[in-house]
Amino acid sequence: MAQAVASTVPAAKPLPAYVNWKNADAMIVHTSSTLETKRSAFGSSIITPTNQLFIRNNLPVPDASIIADRDGWAISIEGVKNPRTLRVKDLKSMGLETTAMVLQCSGNGRGLFPNKPSGTPWQVGAAGCVVWSGVPVRAVVEALGGVNKGMPYMTGTGGEKLPEGIDPKSVMVERSVPVTAMADALLAWEMNGEPIPLAHGGPLRLVVPGYTGVNNVKYIKRLAFTAEQTDAAIQKTGYRISPPGQKGDPSHPPVWEMGPKSWINSPAPESGQLAAGPVQIKGVAFGGINAVKSVDVSVDGGKTWMKARLVGPDMGRYAWRQFVLPATLGPGSHTIACRVVDAEGNRQPEGRVENAGGYNNNSWRDHALTISVA
Amino acid sequence: MAQAVASTVPAAKPLPAYVNWKNADAMIVHTSSTLETKRSAFGSSIITPTNQLFIRNNLPVPDASIIADRDGWAISIEGVKNPRTLRVKDLKSMGLETTAMVLQCSGNGRGLFPNKPSGTPWQVGAAGCVVWSGVPVRAVVEALGGVNKGMPYMTGTGGEKLPEGIDPKSVMVERSVPVTAMADALLAWEMNGEPIPLAHGGPLRLVVPGYTGVNNVKYIKRLAFTAEQTDAAIQKTGYRISPPGQKGDPSHPPVWEMGPKSWINSPAPESGQLAAGPVQIKGVAFGGINAVKSVDVSVDGGKTWMKARLVGPDMGRYAWRQFVLPATLGPGSHTIACRVVDAEGNRQPEGRVENAGGYNNNSWRDHALTISVA
Repeated sequence: MAQAVASTVPAAKPLPAYVNWKNADAMIVHTSSTLETKRSAFGSSIITPTNQLFIRNNLPVPDASIIADRDGWAISIEGVKNPRTLRVKDLKSMGLETTAMVLQCSGNGRGLFPNKPSGTPWQVGAAGCVVWSGVPVRAVVEALGGVNKGMPYMTGTGGEKLPEGIDPKSVMVERSVPVTAMADALLAWEMNGEPIPLAHGGPLRLVVPGYTGVNNVKYIKRLAFTAEQTDAAIQKTGYRISPPGQKGDPSHPPVWEMGPKSWINSPAPESGQLAAGPVQIKGVAFGGINAVKSVDVSVDGGKTWMKARLVGPDMGRYAWRQFVLPATLGPGSHTIACRVVDAEGNRQPEGRVENAGGYNNNSWRDHALTISVA
Repeated sequence: MAQAVASTVPAAKPLPAYVNWKNADAMIVHTSSTLETKRSAFGSSIITPTNQLFIRNNLPVPDASIIADRDGWAISIEGVKNPRTLRVKDLKSMGLETTAMVLQCSGNGRGLFPNKPSGTPWQVGAAGCVVWSGVPVRAVVEALGGVNKGMPYMTGTGGEKLPEGIDPKSVMVERSVPVTAMADALLAWEMNGEPIPLAHGGPLRLVVPGYTGVNNVKYIKRLAFTAEQTDAAIQKTGYRISPPGQKGDPSHPPVWEMGPKSWINSPAPESGQLAAGPVQIKGVAFGGINAVKSVDVSVDGGKTWMKARLVGPDMGRYAWRQFVLPATLGPGSHTIACRVVDAEGNRQPEGRVENAGGYNNNSWRDHALTISVA
C-alpha cells in the first residue's frame, strides 16, 4: 500500500491560475479542475484551511465579475407558495446559521478501487471539514409561504456559463436531493470566515450537510422544490451507483448521503520511513449524516483493534472528529487501519460497494496504510 | 461612536513584508508589528482565518531559518524532576490535544479608553478565535517526573534574537503565569490546520487558554517551573494593571486571565449607512476562562435588553460564540450594545477598570456602536 500511494502521486504540476492562492505544498494537482489535499497536510486542527481544501469543478469556474457585487447575486426560489427572486443582500436579513461539515467529493477514494474506474483517482484528499455561514433554506421557504404540495425534491441549479452549441441538459450542474435534506441546508455566502471564494462556489452556494460534494451546488441561481428529480445528465445518468461496466440510469441509486468513514493522516507513507519508537497515530472520522460515536484503530491490518481517543472540539454531527492512538512501533512493516461507528450504531464497512463510477468508497480495508519502520 | 470608530481607522498602510500573505482588505495596519482585524472582516464562521488574524509582536520576528527545520526546534524544560531539552519531533510523540481559543492582545479595546493610554489604539480587532494543536504541557511534565515542589509559576521564554548592547531583561519576552494554568496549556506546533506561521510564533508556541496574548509565548525555547515570577521587564513592570499615570511594578496585578467580553461585528459603522428594515445583529462573545452562558443585546444604548441566539458549533470554554439577534431598525441613529454572562454567572461589566496601560477593556458601554440608518 505504501508503494501504491506513492506511485499515484503525480509529479508536481503547477497550481491553475484561478486557484494560484492555494498552498502548492499541500496540494496534488490532478488536472486544472481537480486538486487534492495531501494526506500529510490535514494536520490536527479539525478545520481544513481554505488554501488547502480540494477543488473539483464540473464546469469551468465563472468569470470573477460574479463576485464583484456579492450582495447583488440573485437566486430564484420556486415551488413555494410565493416564488420570488432574492438577492444575497435579502437573504442576509432573513436569518443566520453556521454549520461545520465534511465536504467530500463523491469519488473520494476512487483511486483505491483495484479496477480503476474512470475519473480522478482520488485517495483521501478530495475532502475537508469546513465551516459555512448562511441562511437556513427552511427560513427562506417559511418566509415565502412554504413548499408547495407534492414536491419531494429540492433541486438546485448552478450559475456556470454553459458551452454553446450543445444541449444544456447534458452539461449543466443541476442536482436534486430529497426535500427532507432541507432541514439542515443553507444558502451560504461564507466559508471558513471569509466570503466563499469563486473557486468554491461564491457568491452563493447551496450547502446540504451530510451529502456528497456534487449536491452542494455552486453559484446557485435557482432553488426549486420539484415533483421529479431533474433530468439534467449530471443527475439522470451521472453520479449513480450503477454496477461495474454499466452506465448509470434513473433506476440506480443517486449519490446522495455519505456513509461513515475514517482514515489515517499520520504517519503518512508520503512522509517517508518512520523511526522505531512511540508515535501518535492520527486521523479523521465522520458519520456522514450522523455524529461520530467511536473509532477503533488496528496496527496489524485489522486482526486486533484498540479504541482511539477523540480529540479537539466536537463541531457537530456533520463535522469530522480527529482521533489519536498512542502506539509504539518496532522495526518492520505495519498495516494501520481504522474504522468508525456512528451515533446510530452504523459501522464503517470492511469492503467497498463496487460501482462503475467509483463512488462512495468507505471501505476500511481499502483505506488501510502500510508503514515502513526502520 | 460611529464617527469615533471611523476616525481612528488610519489611511491604509501596506502590509509589512513578513506578513505580506495576510488579506490586506481585512487588516488595519497600525505599525509593522501591530496589525488589527477589521470589525467587518470577522464574519460568522467562528474561526478567524490565519490570513486575517491580528499581529502583535514585542520584538522583531526571528529569521525564517528557524522554521526551516520545525521538528528540530529545541525547548528546555526546567523546574521538573528530570529536566530535559526536547525537540518538537520528541514532543509530537508525547501526546496530542487540540483546543479552540480566543487569542486576544492585552490591550485590545485600548482605543476605546477616553484618556488615550499610550500604546496601539486597538478597537476590537486585536483578537481572534483560533484552533491550536500540540502536546499538553501536563503530558510533558508527567513524562519528566512532575513539577518540583515550591514552584507556583510557569515561566516561558521566547526565542527572539535580542538587540545587543542593552540589558536582555529589559527587552526579552519572558512571562510567568500561575502553575495552575498548566492544566489546559499546550506546546503547540499547529494553528488553524497549518504549521504555526513564523509571525504567529512557529515553530513552537506556548498556548495558555484563557490568558491574554502576551502570555502565549512565541518561539518558546524554555519552559521553567519557578519559585518566583520572572524579573524580565515585560513581567516585572510591563503588563500590570497600574493606576493611570503610574508605572507598573510587582505590587500591581499582572495581566493574566481574560474577563467576559463581547462586541458587535455587524452592522459595522465602517460598512456605511444602513437602509431601514430587517437586520441580523451579529457579534462574538467569550467568557475568558469560562464558557459562555448567554448574551443580551440592546438597540437603545442599554436601556432595554433582548436575549440573543447563540449560533454555530460550541468549540469549548475557551472559544468565542457567535450570537445573532434579528431586529428591525427604522431611520435614525441606534446605539447597539451587547453583554455576555459566563457559565459561572460572571457578567461583562458596564464600565472599564481605568489603568495606565489601557489593558483588559471589557466594558460593554465602551464597546457599544452607534449606527446610522437611512
